[in-house]
Amino acid sequence: MIKQYIQTNQERFLNELFDLLRLPSVSADSRHKGDIRKTAEMVKARLLEAGVEKAEICETAGHPIVYGEKLVSANAPTVLVYGHYDVQPPDPLNLWLTPPFEPTVRDGKIYARGACDDKGQFYMHVKAFEIMKNQNLLNCNIKFMIEGEEEVGSDNLGTFVKANKEKLKADVILISDTSLISLDQPSITAGLRGLSYMEVEVESANRDLHSGVYGGAVANPINVLSKMIALLHDENGRVNIPGFYDKVVDLSAAERQAINKAPFSLEEYKKEIGIEDIVGEKGYTTIERTGIRPTLDCNGIWGGYTGEGAKTVLPSKASAKISMRLVPNQNPDEITALFTKHFKSIAPKTIRVKVMAHHGGEAAVTPTDSKAFKAASKAFEDVWGKVPIPTRDGGSIPIVALFKKELGLDTVLMGFGLDTDALHSPNEHYGIKNFLIGIETIVAFYRYYSDTK
Amino acid sequence: MIKQYIQTNQERFLNELFDLLRLPSVSADSRHKGDIRKTAEMVKARLLEAGVEKAEICETAGHPIVYGEKLVSANAPTVLVYGHYDVQPPDPLNLWLTPPFEPTVRDGKIYARGACDDKGQFYMHVKAFEIMKNQNLLNCNIKFMIEGEEEVGSDNLGTFVKANKEKLKADVILISDTSLISLDQPSITAGLRGLSYMEVEVESANRDLHSGVYGGAVANPINVLSKMIALLHDENGRVNIPGFYDKVVDLSAAERQAINKAPFSLEEYKKEIGIEDIVGEKGYTTIERTGIRPTLDCNGIWGGYTGEGAKTVLPSKASAKISMRLVPNQNPDEITALFTKHFKSIAPKTIRVKVMAHHGGEAAVTPTDSKAFKAASKAFEDVWGKVPIPTRDGGSIPIVALFKKELGLDTVLMGFGLDTDALHSPNEHYGIKNFLIGIETIVAFYRYYSDTK
Repeated sequence: MIKQYIQTNQERFLNELFDLLRLPSVSADSRHKGDIRKTAEMVKARLLEAGVEKAEICETAGHPIVYGEKLVSANAPTVLVYGHYDVQPPDPLNLWLTPPFEPTVRDGKIYARGACDDKGQFYMHVKAFEIMKNQNLLNCNIKFMIEGEEEVGSDNLGTFVKANKEKLKADVILISDTSLISLDQPSITAGLRGLSYMEVEVESANRDLHSGVYGGAVANPINVLSKMIALLHDENGRVNIPGFYDKVVDLSAAERQAINKAPFSLEEYKKEIGIEDIVGEKGYTTIERTGIRPTLDCNGIWGGYTGEGAKTVLPSKASAKISMRLVPNQNPDEITALFTKHFKSIAPKTIRVKVMAHHGGEAAVTPTDSKAFKAASKAFEDVWGKVPIPTRDGGSIPIVALFKKELGLDTVLMGFGLDTDALHSPNEHYGIKNFLIGIETIVAFYRYYSDTK
Repeated sequence: MIKQYIQTNQERFLNELFDLLRLPSVSADSRHKGDIRKTAEMVKARLLEAGVEKAEICETAGHPIVYGEKLVSANAPTVLVYGHYDVQPPDPLNLWLTPPFEPTVRDGKIYARGACDDKGQFYMHVKAFEIMKNQNLLNCNIKFMIEGEEEVGSDNLGTFVKANKEKLKADVILISDTSLISLDQPSITAGLRGLSYMEVEVESANRDLHSGVYGGAVANPINVLSKMIALLHDENGRVNIPGFYDKVVDLSAAERQAINKAPFSLEEYKKEIGIEDIVGEKGYTTIERTGIRPTLDCNGIWGGYTGEGAKTVLPSKASAKISMRLVPNQNPDEITALFTKHFKSIAPKTIRVKVMAHHGGEAAVTPTDSKAFKAASKAFEDVWGKVPIPTRDGGSIPIVALFKKELGLDTVLMGFGLDTDALHSPNEHYGIKNFLIGIETIVAFYRYYSDTK
């Protein structure tokens, strides 16, 4: 019955998603403010079409949050669905095979910025809701909260949540914004790393200089910044910032063993992303390094002449974006402060250094023994024919910790993406199969969660 | 008489220069090929207007060379004037107060790309020639060779010089493409550093990845490149490439003493360019570090996300432009090979590295006891009322070594720019005073060189 409905309406579902994907709702870029607004309005309209009884665009100090709800009974459990309609910037544009905001299907995959993260994923919930509504299967109250600032740190979500605790009252939060191990091996994310995202600038002279005239006597900000970045890791691949690991809670041998049970082939891993070899913190496996251990990565660097040919400039400034993935118990504000202090301390006296913080977020671990987690697990088992493996993901969804703190609610992370979907990269894509089976799995979740099966 | 002529024609001289500066003859950027051609044509026309008896545009495999000559007598000495009509790219454009190709006068200075380097400087020779021609003062044969590829390594000048040895026959080369100490203290450049200019690229995965999913297990090319750059200097500020200093000839104590006689105020130096402190190779003064010692500087670096806000990307690649200033006896090709070998040797096995060479050039030292150098010195003394100090400049004019090798000619470097003219930087400028007094000094050079005084 569900499968049938999905099959019959598949083309419409996809066309609706494509309409959403055509809107360049890049939250980091202020030039897209109008597109963000249009996207919020489209999300609201789609919620109403799907059958919510109330939908509204809630203003914030930044981009708006779309809220919608359908309450069936005061006795029924309430699920709060969270998602985000904003997307990452599409740069570098020249590496996209088809334009990022012109969704294109190739090999059964939808190519577009936001296809997986998170338009394609949150829209599964809208369609799952439509099915339950139309098929008279709705035995839970459903609330939707779809925000527009996830990719820039959800700065205004906290204020909104604090101000609307009654409205957001629920029994569990349901989010699809993570990945599966594979289409052959379903998994549910049971933990997420936190994030501290910094931007640094090193300045030497008050203007760009001629490297022939001043080179050798004036500190070169690119060379200095490179050296400072080099100092951020030690020879064992550990983050070399005093205090960085102080609050990290080591997992028990049993916990580590459980995590490492996830299937992993080093050869396939290397081949798929085209790397010569893996790297990482000494004493940990790749699964641990990307899941339960904190890390530090440069996300961007720039300075001097970067055009065609040669320019003998000794630049005035060099900058980098540096982010740290955090694990439970590491506080992003504390880590931001530790980084700032340390980075300034390793700066030579010959240069001026600026350290700025972008958004951060706490790590989160979700319980695997809750009624909701079990319902999700059963839903996967039912639809996929396999018991899903609980995993610890490296990505950060800072709002999971926020929901726990402000609303006292646990989150279930039923993600249907794949690590190979090129999130935040050129040619982001989302499998049509993932999209459709995701809708079916979500409907199954409600069936188990409301105890109707 | 000369002063008078310059004063009367000052406005026309400047307007002619402005016309030249309006043409964006950026040799590094293939989109400006047409502008380069137009500039060559304008230079040819201006030489003819000034009174040369022959002027031609000489084709090369790259941008053309403009040649012109006026021969007065087989017995008179012949001066070959070299200059270049191409300019550096104007980036970063947003830092220019007025557009780089719309010459603007502020505080007695002409602001434009190429104002000093080298349109403003080579054009002084065209105008000095016009004066001598019109005032019947021409007692030397003059040949002009104005090329269009100096800023990209003069790749085709060598072939041209080799093929035209008879045409270029002369007694001395005269170039204005260097700087004075100040308007209060004239100087003549007696030595130039060579150049080896590299571009490196470090690649890890075959595409940009999500730093949350892969960070900690996959080598980050920005972090790796930073570490590799950090390894290029040792703790004493020396270039840490095996063999780099092998061919460097140390100057005698007397030579070093002479060089250090140039006036230098550390406080003024720091204040003028806004640096906190100087850096450099241990055991050498600032004058030595920028004049007689080889150096290594990053001229540009880029990789990952460099836009507004935050993007949690683990980039596939990171790149840098790295150049080395060389001293006499260091061969640019040898240094390029040493760099390439060393840079590849310090690359970790987890990444792929590419090393490419841009243009290079040999260092040069010009004799200070030649008839031409003495004539230049007397010209300064005459017009400026002060004996000029011979200096060793850090900038590279690779063609000086080429002229010595192919034509057997020494060069006199009568530069009228200032180190503060922002060459290769936004807001490049050239003092109107420098331009006018330069013309006068050049006329005086010919007077002394032809023994007519």
